[in-house]
Amino acid sequence: MDRVPFQQKILSENERTANALRARFHEHGILCLNMVSSPGSGKTSLLERTLESFAPSERVALLTGDIQTDNDAVRLRRFGFPVKQITTGGTCHLDARMIERGLADWRLEDIELLLIENVGNLVCPSSYDLGEAAKIVVLSVTEGEDKPLKYPAIFFKSELMVLNKMDLLPHVPFVVESAEENARRVHPAMEIVRSSSLTLEGAQEWLRWLDHRRRSARDLRAVSV
Amino acid sequence: MDRVPFQQKILSENERTANALRARFHEHGILCLNMVSSPGSGKTSLLERTLESFAPSERVALLTGDIQTDNDAVRLRRFGFPVKQITTGGTCHLDARMIERGLADWRLEDIELLLIENVGNLVCPSSYDLGEAAKIVVLSVTEGEDKPLKYPAIFFKSELMVLNKMDLLPHVPFVVESAEENARRVHPAMEIVRSSSLTLEGAQEWLRWLDHRRRSARDLRAVSV
Repeated sequence: MDRVPFQQKILSENERTANALRARFHEHGILCLNMVSSPGSGKTSLLERTLESFAPSERVALLTGDIQTDNDAVRLRRFGFPVKQITTGGTCHLDARMIERGLADWRLEDIELLLIENVGNLVCPSSYDLGEAAKIVVLSVTEGEDKPLKYPAIFFKSELMVLNKMDLLPHVPFVVESAEENARRVHPAMEIVRSSSLTLEGAQEWLRWLDHRRRSARDLRAVSV
Repeated sequence: MDRVPFQQKILSENERTANALRARFHEHGILCLNMVSSPGSGKTSLLERTLESFAPSERVALLTGDIQTDNDAVRLRRFGFPVKQITTGGTCHLDARMIERGLADWRLEDIELLLIENVGNLVCPSSYDLGEAAKIVVLSVTEGEDKPLKYPAIFFKSELMVLNKMDLLPHVPFVVESAEENARRVHPAMEIVRSSSLTLEGAQEWLRWLDHRRRSARDLRAVSV
């Protein structure tokens, strides 16, 4: 019976840290996005294509979470932007304290877009606010159309679903419309981008979504300054 | 700082229940297997093909875990064997108490093989013993070769890796040998079956593995009776 109060305590500590981070992001006009998916849905490849598309002058930084290894940071560092690996050592999600520590030796003035790649897990990351402006859930077409119904929390809390690996569609029994309908049953306002890091399907739409959100973050800051 | 003792307490409660289950399984000559994977790796399809291959007289039962929905139980019930859905309502793994409750109205005398399909999650289920004789990890070729290194606990604790969706191999940048090498770096004695529920590649090998384990469970019981 002591399970619930204990979890509430962790969550409220996390909430406090996340809110402090959110205030700092707002103050610096930083757009922070938290990307969540199953292991192997293609978050890192999507981020590679994204970083590749940015001019070197863009003020983009990236925190990438993993249980073990710094494979993803190695892949993402090739593009010249600041990238830090957060290795959780067994923990199944990133929490706000890890983000706070990850940012400790970075100047927030140098960042306008902070991308966080969460640990590959469709369940636990949904409970941990990282101070982000929005969560993005990545679902690949190899995973089945029913995932939004089976893992509703993360789909409910995400503003955008990237339906990924569209290039594999001819080879898998997956009905795009049905997956999208399931996502919108859980979250009627869900925005959706159909994407492939191989064929670059959806790349423009994804970059437009990012750009729109970045402008909103800047405008929001301008209003409050 | 109170996080560690609390988790230890949960784990040791779980351990006690799991050991009690294991003793009951042993007493009844039941082979219990705990299948773990990412969401959408094809556990349910593999189980469908498995149940399909069994004669109606086989004493097989199945517990299937999910955050929400009873989709999997509906799919698996078609084969006429007892199937029960365990809906965790948000919890990211099955625990031994859920298995105990799931078995409450089943006669253990009627079961010889108990298959447990865990919640789709490569992280948390690795910490929860369900009283099983062995864990099986399912990895699909769409998820990338690096997953055993990134999620080592579940690969370390599993006796068998089913490398699934082999039919998609021509369409994905996945090197089977490298994935297998990674699995064996984490767990040198890992047994591996390359499998596809579409082409039935590996089906015989998987059924032979199951049969071998079932005979061992029976033999073990005969020795101790």
